[in-house]
Amino acid sequence: MELASLYAALGRIAPYTHRTPLLTSRLLDELMGKRLLLKAEHLQKTGSFKARGALSKALALENPKGLLAVSSGNHALGVAYAARVLGVKALLVVPEEASPFKKAAARAYGAEVVDQGVTARNREEVAKALQEETGYALIHPFDDPLVMAGQGTAGLELLAQAGKRGVFPEAVLVPVGGGGLIAGIATAVKALSPTTLVLGVEPKGADDARRSLLEGRIVRLEEAPRTRADGVRTLAVGELPFRVMRERVDGVLAVSEEALLEAERLLFTRTKQVVEPTGALPLAAVLEHGERLPYTLALLLSGGNRDFSP
Amino acid sequence: MELASLYAALGRIAPYTHRTPLLTSRLLDELMGKRLLLKAEHLQKTGSFKARGALSKALALENPKGLLAVSSGNHALGVAYAARVLGVKALLVVPEEASPFKKAAARAYGAEVVDQGVTARNREEVAKALQEETGYALIHPFDDPLVMAGQGTAGLELLAQAGKRGVFPEAVLVPVGGGGLIAGIATAVKALSPTTLVLGVEPKGADDARRSLLEGRIVRLEEAPRTRADGVRTLAVGELPFRVMRERVDGVLAVSEEALLEAERLLFTRTKQVVEPTGALPLAAVLEHGERLPYTLALLLSGGNRDFSP
Repeated sequence: MELASLYAALGRIAPYTHRTPLLTSRLLDELMGKRLLLKAEHLQKTGSFKARGALSKALALENPKGLLAVSSGNHALGVAYAARVLGVKALLVVPEEASPFKKAAARAYGAEVVDQGVTARNREEVAKALQEETGYALIHPFDDPLVMAGQGTAGLELLAQAGKRGVFPEAVLVPVGGGGLIAGIATAVKALSPTTLVLGVEPKGADDARRSLLEGRIVRLEEAPRTRADGVRTLAVGELPFRVMRERVDGVLAVSEEALLEAERLLFTRTKQVVEPTGALPLAAVLEHGERLPYTLALLLSGGNRDFSP
Repeated sequence: MELASLYAALGRIAPYTHRTPLLTSRLLDELMGKRLLLKAEHLQKTGSFKARGALSKALALENPKGLLAVSSGNHALGVAYAARVLGVKALLVVPEEASPFKKAAARAYGAEVVDQGVTARNREEVAKALQEETGYALIHPFDDPLVMAGQGTAGLELLAQAGKRGVFPEAVLVPVGGGGLIAGIATAVKALSPTTLVLGVEPKGADDARRSLLEGRIVRLEEAPRTRADGVRTLAVGELPFRVMRERVDGVLAVSEEALLEAERLLFTRTKQVVEPTGALPLAAVLEHGERLPYTLALLLSGGNRDFSP
């Protein structure tokens, strides 16, 4: 995946996505002793960057009959939205035990939720069977060049927005789950601003990407990690993202759950933005590893889908 | 209070306040069947519009030795911030039983909190005594023309921002507590866009302003109303704001606590903005009285100081 595919993806998705703002907060800068640029993907369509990748893929398909995804999270919302843009059906394969809140959110976007008899173990099989039965296109959440290119468009925008303000981000911090987002962002950054560091951020209990980069092979977690950051509970990074990461990502930082909670609190109370735990990982890395990080940092606030509690 | 005093206030405070954005949300517009312009005072310095009024007053004083306020809420933060801008001390008179969270927030802004032996009943006396003892200037939260003019600057900005986009707000919806904010906003609106309606919003249990306007005299509540909207728990509107309101406010809508909670939820989940209950009153009015309201509405999101719950 090269820069040209990111521009192509941006061309496809731009009419249906927001060019999300690059937020700044003097208060937060003072507290952290850094200059922070917050790429506000929590304000993206569907509430996360996942709309970019899903649309990038869906709009490149030739007359798909429908879209299919294995997800109850932000990727599901992205695929449901992409299907609406295309005017086709979306089928989401979701374990029966997934939260009713998430199923309802997917249905609210017009998708059909398939959960009867679905478990975390058999859901890939169920999806394959459904794919053959319906002829719908299966959209992988990260292990797909067109999806990665779509996620990377957030990086293109970020660099353009920083450049327009005359600010040079010395490092970009990105949450890592399956690796699709950071692979896309790193492709944009290393092509357009090669001296900018690209750093992944993971919860300490789920630092498979960090270990994978260190060991030079994909390290797979034994079981789903316990972390507030539900967007990065994947067991391993994808093969295609990993190839890109090895070449273009400078490192991965692991953060504690305490730092993550404090980062969420700071974003909530200081910037008045609703960011989900996964989206607060980059700020948690600034809290926990600030002294090892440069001064001007771009943080990818990846999503804002969290429950409201009165 | 006339338009000229609002411009004068804006001239004083502009270097120290944000020209907060006028947010829009296509999703929210679709849900409500309206065109909504959200004046984002939750993104104001100190997290609410109160910084405007406090600064407007403080910057008009001649060499004050210090500032004094009777408040543990957003007005306290505004006064603490104004004192910091002036480089003088702030004393806040707060009942002992006020929430430690609010006291801590005021202290974080550099103010000194006076709470020993202070009750809801004697706090005005305590403040008067402190004023004589210290010579500090007492800043009233609403019953003061310079404070009202400061709050009104949010209205000047709102109209300019809407005008720049070529959008004409048919009505402006504003939370009403002591009446300082709506008096200021109404002064701006009736001078610059006289056919735009100015409507107050109160919780049903605290509709003293609505009744005051209907009866033509200030109606005082017997006891502090129970409502989620802690910013409008005042027992009565102020005399000076009431005079302005009688002339320039077109009506006051009362909303249920259920509508208020739903409005908070919508702002949180759909716009990803952290707005405190009081700031959600205008959207609650759209939920509950939408069919009686025109299509293009400006909503004053008055503040965003709410607790974070993980």
